[in-house]
Amino acid sequence: MTPGFSLSAALRMQHFAAWTRATGHRFVRELGAGTLDDRVLARYLVQDYAFVEALASLVGLAVARAPTMAGKRLFARFAAVLTSDENTYFERCFASLGVTEAERTSPVLWLESQRFLDLLGAAGEGGYADILSVLLPAEWIYLDWGEAEAVDPPSRFEHAEWVALHAGPAFSGFVAGLAREFDAATAGLDAAGLDRVAHRFGAMVELEGAFFDAAYR
Amino acid sequence: MTPGFSLSAALRMQHFAAWTRATGHRFVRELGAGTLDDRVLARYLVQDYAFVEALASLVGLAVARAPTMAGKRLFARFAAVLTSDENTYFERCFASLGVTEAERTSPVLWLESQRFLDLLGAAGEGGYADILSVLLPAEWIYLDWGEAEAVDPPSRFEHAEWVALHAGPAFSGFVAGLAREFDAATAGLDAAGLDRVAHRFGAMVELEGAFFDAAYR
Repeated sequence: MTPGFSLSAALRMQHFAAWTRATGHRFVRELGAGTLDDRVLARYLVQDYAFVEALASLVGLAVARAPTMAGKRLFARFAAVLTSDENTYFERCFASLGVTEAERTSPVLWLESQRFLDLLGAAGEGGYADILSVLLPAEWIYLDWGEAEAVDPPSRFEHAEWVALHAGPAFSGFVAGLAREFDAATAGLDAAGLDRVAHRFGAMVELEGAFFDAAYR
Repeated sequence: MTPGFSLSAALRMQHFAAWTRATGHRFVRELGAGTLDDRVLARYLVQDYAFVEALASLVGLAVARAPTMAGKRLFARFAAVLTSDENTYFERCFASLGVTEAERTSPVLWLESQRFLDLLGAAGEGGYADILSVLLPAEWIYLDWGEAEAVDPPSRFEHAEWVALHAGPAFSGFVAGLAREFDAATAGLDAAGLDRVAHRFGAMVELEGAFFDAAYR
């Protein structure tokens, strides 16, 4: 590996236009300002919740496949947050926003949501580097906008907690660890393996912006 | 399922002689009394540590395969403990007991340790019920002796923390949840599947006692 070069940083730069389209999206700016339409937030949360179990499963596979105890610890802690604090955030939002049981448990999936499910599922069929190639861009993009909006946080819990879950030392430490694991795991890949993780990484970055768009559709 | 009957309770009763051989073993009684020979404890911890990564991996697979968010949360929290508090307990014991780096990282495995690795690996190749069939007896036996020894706990951290990690509301809540998940997951199994989980459960119970024996060998 060339000094100063990391694959994670290079891939982020390569997809920087799509990256900033997601991190500066109207959705996150309105969420941070506390001006987001409740119907837009409800639509977004229902779709997001439809793949949060698949995300938790993929993080469980990361615990299983991480080659070191430090890697297993990183993902075990994230899985614990995802299945507790983050899960109750969804439940409380659904109650406060008046989302019905039927909408929560059997929503009509957007194409973008199905695409997330497909990417998460395909990554879980691969090795550790494949899993990281979808988790890293998703969590890193959320950290970038989360940190920006946490400077002057909104007041309603529906907005404030979604910002707080994606900012601060615990979450930024997790994303830094995720990037380290990704760079270490991809160091041993051949050209075909590198091509596969780079492709998945890019597909996730594009999808994050498209998913925010869909909330307004 | 017959009212009042649960497969977890039935399997525990079926293997009760081997169960109490483990839970009342000289090893745990001496650990609880604070009279355990340091060389015996060091031998045990080195071997146990040799499959703690495999155990963490299997718990990660349980997060991935649990069919509900509640099940994923149960195992995510356990994986977090296993990879943090429990992991540092081993590291501090190795330092205090003078276990060398070579003994920690590349021990000569006992046959019993290899058998644990084989059982954990085979369970991970199966479904959720297969995973639970090895986790449940292992953790439940540890809870049974942990609770007994926690009544009058030993003073040295090498003894006290190993007892405390396997007693108290958090750990007993985890084992109760594990039993519920096991009973629910096995309810849908056919005869061959039931036979497989019952066999694995019994093999784990036998192995726990044999593992304690080996520490004195």
